[in-house]
Amino acid sequence: MTAIITAFERSPDRGRGLARDMRVRWALEEVGQLYEVRFLSFRAMREPLHLSLQPFGQIPTFEEGDLALFESGAIVLHIAERHGGLLPGDANARSRAIAWMFAALNTMEPQIFDRSLATILERDQPWYEQRLQALESIIRKRLGDLSRRLGEADWLDGAFSAGDLLMVTVLRRLHGSGLLEEHPNLAAYVARGEARPAYRRAFAAQLAVFAAASAG
Amino acid sequence: MTAIITAFERSPDRGRGLARDMRVRWALEEVGQLYEVRFLSFRAMREPLHLSLQPFGQIPTFEEGDLALFESGAIVLHIAERHGGLLPGDANARSRAIAWMFAALNTMEPQIFDRSLATILERDQPWYEQRLQALESIIRKRLGDLSRRLGEADWLDGAFSAGDLLMVTVLRRLHGSGLLEEHPNLAAYVARGEARPAYRRAFAAQLAVFAAASAG
Repeated sequence: MTAIITAFERSPDRGRGLARDMRVRWALEEVGQLYEVRFLSFRAMREPLHLSLQPFGQIPTFEEGDLALFESGAIVLHIAERHGGLLPGDANARSRAIAWMFAALNTMEPQIFDRSLATILERDQPWYEQRLQALESIIRKRLGDLSRRLGEADWLDGAFSAGDLLMVTVLRRLHGSGLLEEHPNLAAYVARGEARPAYRRAFAAQLAVFAAASAG
Repeated sequence: MTAIITAFERSPDRGRGLARDMRVRWALEEVGQLYEVRFLSFRAMREPLHLSLQPFGQIPTFEEGDLALFESGAIVLHIAERHGGLLPGDANARSRAIAWMFAALNTMEPQIFDRSLATILERDQPWYEQRLQALESIIRKRLGDLSRRLGEADWLDGAFSAGDLLMVTVLRRLHGSGLLEEHPNLAAYVARGEARPAYRRAFAAQLAVFAAASAG
């Protein structure tokens, strides 16, 4: 069945694959499910039609038959549960992979996302340097913990899973900050994710949208 | 099977049920699973034994037979999948309930948690008022969206689910801020969660720990 997802008509990240539809595109590419994309302007995201699908007026959403879902983490988990390849078969290993999904979104992402936002919105504030240092101090602690746990392994817990998929999309937001490079095993981990054929297809697809919108 | 969870030896919230073990206790009480608690000092949370269970040195963890899990969201989902009462039987409704779990932790919690932290750690900083206003502006927008979606319903999507359980624990952190009271349906929603017998048992259990630690 072809899924329908929503994405920014013109992504504020200029096609760098940081918008949250990237996670869903990547998951769909990993499992080989066909999908179509409905593009939304910022205005359309606050209209009743979209709010009926996504109460907070965000992207992405996911529609498949009579199911409508929101929250990128929940969508990736739904795809992983319906198709092979993103969650282990063993029940305990499956629960642990899901723990890494939550760790990516609830333990790693908030400060990493705040840091991105601060570098855009608070750069001219008198407190900017101090705020950035406070955020980077928490991010460094978390990256240190994550690096220690990953060690020499390719992925966080056995084979590549939906937990790795979300973690890589979260860590990618640190590109250019220098923070990732302090842990060569984490930088290699992110590069390993970005080298997957499914990732590359998903990345190319979202970049093509931005390029077309900019040319148009 | 009796589960073993970890919690603060002396919770920094002084027994108000804001530490993340509260979610897990509540879920275990809802499904009627017995559990024991291992209490940790802040020092013990950074020792190798605990880091082997929880790479980021946080609480709670969850052990059951040969399964060890971390991340409160993943633990609640695991409990909900193994027992009845926290997820609908219908597959689509189940995916939607899980979407609310992610919405609670990834869309609602970050700024609500940051606001709590800022009122403690940043009160004397020159940016405090502006930072608080920025956080509350986002929180207000999200609460408005959530209030509109909830409407007159008791719970977010049909019967009480793990999505409501997590959302109530996240919104509770706004007690005392005045923000929840701007939406009477959300204040009533939180009160409805807090009135559940399973919630009350879980709350009493964590409060007893704090009271004993303070008396000792």
